[in-house]
Amino acid sequence: MSDRDRIEIHDGGGPVFGAGIWHFATYVDRYATDGYGEPRTVLDGIRLAGQVEDLSVVDLNWPFPPASAGIGTGEVKDALAAQDLRAIAVTPEIYTGTFAKGGFTNPDPAVRRAAVDLVAASAEVGRELGVDYVKLWPGQDGFDYPFQADYIDLWDKSVGAVRELALAFPDLRFAIEYKPREPRNRMVFSSVARTLLAIEDMGVDNVGVLLDFGHALYGGETPAESARMAIARDKLFAIDVNDNFRGWDDDMVVGSVHLLETFEFFFALHDAGWSGVWQLDQFPFREDSVEAARAGIRTMKAFHQALGYLDRKELAEAQAAQDALGAQRIAKRALFRALAESESA
Amino acid sequence: MSDRDRIEIHDGGGPVFGAGIWHFATYVDRYATDGYGEPRTVLDGIRLAGQVEDLSVVDLNWPFPPASAGIGTGEVKDALAAQDLRAIAVTPEIYTGTFAKGGFTNPDPAVRRAAVDLVAASAEVGRELGVDYVKLWPGQDGFDYPFQADYIDLWDKSVGAVRELALAFPDLRFAIEYKPREPRNRMVFSSVARTLLAIEDMGVDNVGVLLDFGHALYGGETPAESARMAIARDKLFAIDVNDNFRGWDDDMVVGSVHLLETFEFFFALHDAGWSGVWQLDQFPFREDSVEAARAGIRTMKAFHQALGYLDRKELAEAQAAQDALGAQRIAKRALFRALAESESA
Amino acid sequence: MSDRDRIEIHDGGGPVFGAGIWHFATYVDRYATDGYGEPRTVLDGIRLAGQVEDLSVVDLNWPFPPASAGIGTGEVKDALAAQDLRAIAVTPEIYTGTFAKGGFTNPDPAVRRAAVDLVAASAEVGRELGVDYVKLWPGQDGFDYPFQADYIDLWDKSVGAVRELALAFPDLRFAIEYKPREPRNRMVFSSVARTLLAIEDMGVDNVGVLLDFGHALYGGETPAESARMAIARDKLFAIDVNDNFRGWDDDMVVGSVHLLETFEFFFALHDAGWSGVWQLDQFPFREDSVEAARAGIRTMKAFHQALGYLDRKELAEAQAAQDALGAQRIAKRALFRALAESESA
Amino acid sequence: MSDRDRIEIHDGGGPVFGAGIWHFATYVDRYATDGYGEPRTVLDGIRLAGQVEDLSVVDLNWPFPPASAGIGTGEVKDALAAQDLRAIAVTPEIYTGTFAKGGFTNPDPAVRRAAVDLVAASAEVGRELGVDYVKLWPGQDGFDYPFQADYIDLWDKSVGAVRELALAFPDLRFAIEYKPREPRNRMVFSSVARTLLAIEDMGVDNVGVLLDFGHALYGGETPAESARMAIARDKLFAIDVNDNFRGWDDDMVVGSVHLLETFEFFFALHDAGWSGVWQLDQFPFREDSVEAARAGIRTMKAFHQALGYLDRKELAEAQAAQDALGAQRIAKRALFRALAESESA
Repeated sequence: MSDRDRIEIHDGGGPVFGAGIWHFATYVDRYATDGYGEPRTVLDGIRLAGQVEDLSVVDLNWPFPPASAGIGTGEVKDALAAQDLRAIAVTPEIYTGTFAKGGFTNPDPAVRRAAVDLVAASAEVGRELGVDYVKLWPGQDGFDYPFQADYIDLWDKSVGAVRELALAFPDLRFAIEYKPREPRNRMVFSSVARTLLAIEDMGVDNVGVLLDFGHALYGGETPAESARMAIARDKLFAIDVNDNFRGWDDDMVVGSVHLLETFEFFFALHDAGWSGVWQLDQFPFREDSVEAARAGIRTMKAFHQALGYLDRKELAEAQAAQDALGAQRIAKRALFRALAESESA
Repeated sequence: MSDRDRIEIHDGGGPVFGAGIWHFATYVDRYATDGYGEPRTVLDGIRLAGQVEDLSVVDLNWPFPPASAGIGTGEVKDALAAQDLRAIAVTPEIYTGTFAKGGFTNPDPAVRRAAVDLVAASAEVGRELGVDYVKLWPGQDGFDYPFQADYIDLWDKSVGAVRELALAFPDLRFAIEYKPREPRNRMVFSSVARTLLAIEDMGVDNVGVLLDFGHALYGGETPAESARMAIARDKLFAIDVNDNFRGWDDDMVVGSVHLLETFEFFFALHDAGWSGVWQLDQFPFREDSVEAARAGIRTMKAFHQALGYLDRKELAEAQAAQDALGAQRIAKRALFRALAESESA
Repeated sequence: MSDRDRIEIHDGGGPVFGAGIWHFATYVDRYATDGYGEPRTVLDGIRLAGQVEDLSVVDLNWPFPPASAGIGTGEVKDALAAQDLRAIAVTPEIYTGTFAKGGFTNPDPAVRRAAVDLVAASAEVGRELGVDYVKLWPGQDGFDYPFQADYIDLWDKSVGAVRELALAFPDLRFAIEYKPREPRNRMVFSSVARTLLAIEDMGVDNVGVLLDFGHALYGGETPAESARMAIARDKLFAIDVNDNFRGWDDDMVVGSVHLLETFEFFFALHDAGWSGVWQLDQFPFREDSVEAARAGIRTMKAFHQALGYLDRKELAEAQAAQDALGAQRIAKRALFRALAESESA
Repeated sequence: MSDRDRIEIHDGGGPVFGAGIWHFATYVDRYATDGYGEPRTVLDGIRLAGQVEDLSVVDLNWPFPPASAGIGTGEVKDALAAQDLRAIAVTPEIYTGTFAKGGFTNPDPAVRRAAVDLVAASAEVGRELGVDYVKLWPGQDGFDYPFQADYIDLWDKSVGAVRELALAFPDLRFAIEYKPREPRNRMVFSSVARTLLAIEDMGVDNVGVLLDFGHALYGGETPAESARMAIARDKLFAIDVNDNFRGWDDDMVVGSVHLLETFEFFFALHDAGWSGVWQLDQFPFREDSVEAARAGIRTMKAFHQALGYLDRKELAEAQAAQDALGAQRIAKRALFRALAESESA
C-alpha cells in the first residue's frame, strides 16, 4: 500500500449519515412469504426516512419499488425534497426473479443483456437524481453447487459487463458491493481482494468498491483492514454498516454485537482521511425501522465523538509495538467515554 | 444410552421415500421478492411430486398453500390419491407474517393462542389425512439480539404450548424439527440435545424429534451421532435429508457435498433398527424440482444398496479400535461400489 | 425450567475472581513447538498469579506442571499461602500424550483405567487442597473422522467413567467442562445440553457443568441462555470466561470482542442468583500474563458495577415485550457507564 | 482472466506425488505438550516417507528438525537418495518461538532481520538441494486483537520482506502459502486474492502462491475457483491437499470429507493445464503416518483416473448452461467409477 491513504482531512461538522431506502421497507423471506408487514412503496420509505433526524441521504432501488407501480423519477425527487433528503446512489434491481439464474453471468445472453440494460437505465435515472454512484450488487451472479459453473466464464462475464457499463457512463461512478453469499450460495464478487482484482481486470477508473461492514465480517475479513486495503488503491467508493453474528448477513443494528470492531472500522476510515457518507444497511425485520435507524445513527455519532477523544499518538505507539492490551485500552477509553455520554443523554 | 437401539429389523423391499411438498413449490427470498418462478398451489405440488417415480409420501403445509385459496382437505386427498401418494405429515404454518415475532413465544397472548389453535386445526386435518405425525417447526420462536429475551420465558412458553397440544391430541404424534437459526437469528429448539431436554420437560409421550440432516450439520453436530442420541431415547420420530456447505441451511440436493457423512447418517439409522421414511427437504431454488427429487432419491437408493454391501463385522472391529483409516476404507468400499453402479445405470 | 433459578441472593462485596493456573504458563502449539516463552512450573505460575491484585482462587492442573518435576502438594499449598491464594479446583491432565487417543473412551482398557486412576489421584490431591470441585475436561475423548467411532460406545464409556468417579468420591463435586472440539475434531461433551443429558444418564448428584463462555460462544450457543439452562437444572458448578472470534477457542482477554454478550452472561448468572467464582480461562500466548489477567478482571469488575446500574424493572418490561432495541438500550446505558468509569479510573 | 490457462498439456504417466516431511513427524499441541508420539528427526521422517510407494518428492523444513541436532544438508541429501526421494521445496521455520510475535512483521527490527536471514539461509540450502521453490509461510505474521496492529504497516513489512528475498535470489522461486489464521488469529496472507494483490505490490516475477486446499476451504473460498484465479495470473507455483470440516485447518486425509470438491480442485488444475506436483499436507496426529499418506495418494490416484473418465464435452455443455444437476451427475459418474475401482482393488 502506498502512503496515499495517510492524507489528513478536515471534517468540520461531523459525518453525513445515509441509509439504503430498503431500511424502511417491509420484507419477505422464504418462510414468511406473506411478509413481515404491509408492503410499502419507495415513497412510503422516503417518508419514514424523513422522520430520522440525522439522516441526509438515501440509496434508492430502481425500478422504484414496487416495480409494478411505475413511480416516476420526478415524483421521487419531489418526495426527497419534501423530506430534505438527497439520493446518494441508485441500486438497480438485478437480483429479482428475472435474474434468478444470474444477471451479468446468466447463461442466457438475452438475460445478460437485460441486466446490463437495466443498470444503464438506472444510471440515467441516477444522473437525473444527481447521485454520487450507481451501486452494483449482482446478488444472483455466482453458483450453488460444486461443478456447476466454469469459474473463468463467470469471472469474465462479470468483469466484461461492468467494464461495458463503466465505459458507457464515463461521467458516473460504479460501486460494486461484494458479499460472500446469499442469495447465491457463492457469489462472484465475494471479498474485497477479489473485487479489487476484478476492478483491475476491468481497466477503467470509474469502478470502485462499496464495503459493507457486515459482509466483510461474516466473510472472515477484518473490516478495518479491508477498508485500508481498498483506500490504499483509491477504490473505496462507499461503505455500509450494520452488524451480525459472523455467520450470516444478519443486517442487525450497528453496534448491537461488535462495538469495538465497528469503532475500529470508522477509525480506519478516519485515519486514512476517507470522507464519504456513513451509511446504514440494516434490515429491521421485526423492529420499528425509524427507531432502528435512530439507534444506528446514535451509535455512529458516539463513534465520531470517540474519534475526537482518541489519543492518536499513544495509539500509534501501541500499534507500532503491536501491543494488544495497550492498544485496546487506549481505544476503549475513548470509545466508552463517548458511548456513556451518548446513552446517558 | 441404552441398548434399545441395537434391535435388528427386517426391511424387506427397501426404504419408503418421501418429501416435503414445498420441495415442489417456487420460492421467494428477501431479494427476489417476486419469486423464483410462477406461484404454485399445493395441488400443483402434488402433481409434480407424482412425477417422481419412487416417491410415496409427502409432508403437507397447512393451511394448504396458498392460504388464500381455501383449498379443502377432500380436494387434497383426491389429488394425493390420483398420484398414488400418501400424507405422512402435516406442517402447520406457524412461521408466516402473523407469527413474525413468534408463535408459541409471541409476547402477545392472542398470537400465542392463534399459533396453538392453528396447530390444533392442522392436527384435525392430519387425522383426516391419516398422517403419522404433526410436524412442529416454530421458526419464529427465538430471538435476534443480545438482551432481547428472557430465555427462561421463551423456554417455558415453548414447552408449555407443545405440552398442551400433545395432551389435547393423545392419539397423534408431534415431531419437533429443530434448527439453529433462520428465520430467527437464534431459535428455541436449536439442537437435538436441547430439544430432547425440552421434550423431557414436557412430560408427555407423544412428542419427538424430526432430525433434519442439514440442520444438524450446519449446527455443528455430527448428524449420525445426533440420530443415535435421539433413537437411544426413543424420540426419533422422523428425518429429513438435504445438504449444505455447513454454514447455512442451503437445502441442497442430497449427496451434493457430504456423501460420506450422509451415508454415515443412514448407516446410523439402519444400524439402530430405525425404520421410518427417508424424506427429502430440499429447496431447489433454481433447479427443476422433479429432477432434483429424482437426484436425491437416486443417491439415497445407492446409500441403501451400499448398506447391503457394507461388511458390518469388519466395520465394528475398526470402530472398536477407533481406527479412522480402516473404518473409512470399509465404508468407502461399500459406498463407492453402490454409487458407481447407481450412476452408471 | 423451574423457578428455582429466580432466587435472590445477597452478594456483599462483589464477586470472587479466579483463574486457571495455566493462564500464567507459557505455551506450545503445533508450529511453535519450542514454545512461546521459557517453560514455567506451577510454582512460577502461582507467583505470577499472586501479582494480580484481585485474584483470590486458582484452578490447578495435576500432576503439577511439569509432571516430571514431582512437585508435591505441600509445596503447592505453601506457594498458594504465600500468595494469599486458594485452590478452587484441580484439573487432572487426562489429555496429554498418554491419552492422545482418548482418556475415558480410549479403545485400550488399560488407558481408560489410567485415566480414571489419574482423576482419582487428583481427587485425593483436591481433598488435601480443599477444592470446591474436580474439573473434568476429557479433551481427547471424541473422534476425528466420519465413521471412525461408534457413538453409543463413546457415550457409554464417558458416562460410565464419570459415574464411577462420582460414586467413588461422594464428598466431592465433579464439573465437566464441555467444548465443541480441540484437540479432537469432535468431542463427546460438546454442548451444554448434551452434557446435561449425559449427567442425567449418570444418575448421580455430584456431577455438574463448567460453562466456559468461549466454548459456548464458538459452539453456536448463546452463553447467557446456556447458563440459564444449566442453572435451572441445578447443574452449573462453575464458569470460565474469555473471548474469541466465534470460530475457535481463541481464549482471548475477556471483553476484547463480545462486550455485550459477556455482560449478558454475567447478568444471567446474577439474575438467577448464581454465586460462584468469576473465573478466567485466558491463554495470553503473546501477551504479559499478569497484565492480561488484570485486564480481564478490570472488565469483569466493570460488569459487576454495571449490574448495579441496571434498571431491572425496565429491562424486565422490555424483555417481556421482546423489544430488542429497548432492551439493548437499557443494558447499554448501564454497561457503558460502568465501563467508562472503569477505563477512566 | 485471460485464456492463458486453457493450454493443453500432455501428462504422460500421471502426476508426481509429494508430501511435506512434517507429515511423517509427531506433533505437540497446547494440551498434549508432551507430544502425540516419540520425537522424530528429519531423517526419521525421510525414512518413513520412503515407505510410501508412490511418493517422489518432499518439502523439507529448515533448519532440519530438530534444529538443535545440527543435521547437515549433505546428510539429508544422502537420506533422500537412499529413499529415492527428491526435495521439491524447503520451508524455513519462521514461525517458531523466536518469531512468536511475527517474523517479517515483528515489531523488533532485529527479529525481522533474523526472519529474512533465516529464509536467505534456507534458500542457499534449497539451491544445494535443487528445490523447485522456497516456501514462505509466515504463520506468526498477523494480529490477534482488534486495534492491535496498523494494517498498512503489517502489509508493507510483509511485502517488503518478500520482495527483498525475491530480488536477492532471482534464480529461485518463492511460494507464499496463504492461510486465514492459526497460529495467529488473523494472518496477513489470508486468502488467494489478497496474496495475489500482495505479489503485485512486490513487483517481482519469482513470487507465487502455494494453494493449500484446506486453507482455501476453511477460508470460505471454493478451492477450484481459487486455483483458476491463481493460474490465470500465472502465479500458482504449488499446491497442497488435505481435508477438514470447513471451520479449521484440520489437515485430515485427502477425500475423507470433501470428495467432490477435492476432485473439482484437481479437475480445475488439469483443465487449466497446470502440471505441478500433487502434494500432501496432512497432519495424522493419531494415525499411522505411512498409512495416512498411502490413503491420501490412493484417493488422488483415483482422482487422476476419474479425470480420464470425465466426458469433457458433456461437462462443458452443462457448465455453459450452469446446469447444477447435470454437471454434478457427469462429474459423479466419472468419479465414482474411479473410486470404486480404486477401493475394490
